[in-house]
Amino acid sequence: MKHVKPIDAPVIVGSMALDNVKTPAGEVTDSLGGAANYSAVAASFFTPVNLVGVIGDDFPQTHLDYLESRNIDLAGVDRIDGGKTFSWSGYYDFDLNIAHTTDTQLNVFADFKPTLPDAYRKASYVFLANIDPVLQLDVLNQVEKPRLTLCDTMNFWITSKRDALIEVLSRVDVAFMNDAEARQLTGCMSTIKAAKAIQKLGPKTVIVKKGEHGALLFHEDEHFSAPSYPLEDIVDPTGAGDSFAGGFIGYIASEGDITPKTMRRAVVYGSVMASFNVEDFSLNRMRRLTPHHIAERYRKFKEIAYFEAMEEAVL
Amino acid sequence: MKHVKPIDAPVIVGSMALDNVKTPAGEVTDSLGGAANYSAVAASFFTPVNLVGVIGDDFPQTHLDYLESRNIDLAGVDRIDGGKTFSWSGYYDFDLNIAHTTDTQLNVFADFKPTLPDAYRKASYVFLANIDPVLQLDVLNQVEKPRLTLCDTMNFWITSKRDALIEVLSRVDVAFMNDAEARQLTGCMSTIKAAKAIQKLGPKTVIVKKGEHGALLFHEDEHFSAPSYPLEDIVDPTGAGDSFAGGFIGYIASEGDITPKTMRRAVVYGSVMASFNVEDFSLNRMRRLTPHHIAERYRKFKEIAYFEAMEEAVL
Repeated sequence: MKHVKPIDAPVIVGSMALDNVKTPAGEVTDSLGGAANYSAVAASFFTPVNLVGVIGDDFPQTHLDYLESRNIDLAGVDRIDGGKTFSWSGYYDFDLNIAHTTDTQLNVFADFKPTLPDAYRKASYVFLANIDPVLQLDVLNQVEKPRLTLCDTMNFWITSKRDALIEVLSRVDVAFMNDAEARQLTGCMSTIKAAKAIQKLGPKTVIVKKGEHGALLFHEDEHFSAPSYPLEDIVDPTGAGDSFAGGFIGYIASEGDITPKTMRRAVVYGSVMASFNVEDFSLNRMRRLTPHHIAERYRKFKEIAYFEAMEEAVL
Repeated sequence: MKHVKPIDAPVIVGSMALDNVKTPAGEVTDSLGGAANYSAVAASFFTPVNLVGVIGDDFPQTHLDYLESRNIDLAGVDRIDGGKTFSWSGYYDFDLNIAHTTDTQLNVFADFKPTLPDAYRKASYVFLANIDPVLQLDVLNQVEKPRLTLCDTMNFWITSKRDALIEVLSRVDVAFMNDAEARQLTGCMSTIKAAKAIQKLGPKTVIVKKGEHGALLFHEDEHFSAPSYPLEDIVDPTGAGDSFAGGFIGYIASEGDITPKTMRRAVVYGSVMASFNVEDFSLNRMRRLTPHHIAERYRKFKEIAYFEAMEEAVL
């Protein structure tokens, strides 16, 4: 891995959770979850990370140890004495594209006011994972002159905090969204039209995550389509989008450039990290992952997408 | 275009129709349609075609003239005196993925018994477009020693003629299906599992058409994912899958080889032809299409799917 200057370690802000998840492959309780954790761990394979979030005093020390072992700085994580960590409970049936929520316990997350340590305010890369867009704006107001700001969101905020979300979009460089969210936000049935409509709201770069159909990058006038990895057995789709964003940001930060060439590769690294993440519950697959695995799968993506240029003679 | 030996002109068997189609972009009545026509015209940009189908005496001479102008041989087309041509009436709402059928008039198609002219029986390439699988089997029994047999189907036959369809699949080399059909046939929620299950039924090669999400090629153990073309405005999706299959077969026949390399390119040519076809009603876009347009769009597909191989140094 390249040496990354501390200032280039991305700041990742979002939820840290203890989840209860059930899928056709099994179930886990009180497992490490939350958008910020999934993103930070995925990014950590490429770069050190500065994490901003909140936990209760029930958050196991072993999880904190694991995050620190991944070179994730926890100076921005608030631990609330007597508080309980945010918890999501849900299940997936055989259609793994649909998450069914059975319970959401906001707990300490209800009063989350992200405050960036001074050292983080000069960050070059800032990722606002899926949280209330009002908080995303708070974070944007705390950073001095980031090189690249990125945000994710979800259907809940599109409906309930639309104006704040539109303001976030007007201020970030990169927006991640899944295809249903892109259509919901813009009212466009076509994913292509929806992505272009989102670009008009602010972000030069829009990345549409399409799960088993891969991902699309819209960067100014450029268009790139990344395939998905042909997984036969998905154990748990939770955190796939967050791992995708983490891989994307981690790779960008490690390269230190934001050219279209790097963005395309970052989309593939994002897809690689998401494809690993869904192979096990929680962050379990990440615990066994090595740079060699990542390199192998990147090559596999290259092979899946490869076809020869045309020979002029044919037509 | 390469010189194609007559024996290598693919035989395409299927419906020839006069359609009534309404979409958010407008409507057409009694327009040239039918799976065999869409496939044959798309294939005709790469190779001469031998068409097998049935029409009534209401089928306009101008349509026959157009097909012949495309180097499509009509010796296998039966014209029934006093009969009416098959007609499909339907509409699309803003979700262009869903065709709503308002009327199907089988007419002369109800008694269709495809009979191959003697010269066609030695064909190297035989495409069984979407028709009753019992008729598809009839055609397979009439060809002597084809190099490559291909079939398409639809949800209706999966439900109503499952056994015959399974027999067709056990006898063809290539199966085209859209993702919903692949899942319906196999009962697998995962497209990847569904495609592999279809391979086990017979065809070495399974091609899953995913509309706006591109197409997947499963060829023995190989996996290839082709992107879709980012069309903002789709005028009429009718015939997209047939144009895809026609482009695929036409390219294979023109190359005269069935290596994985050629198959991958054929999937992209199929995608190219489908992307043009939906830009106008009926076969209208095809009437204005040139080899230069096809070459340009193939290059565009290459650009959309391109990303750099990894530098070992990164990880």
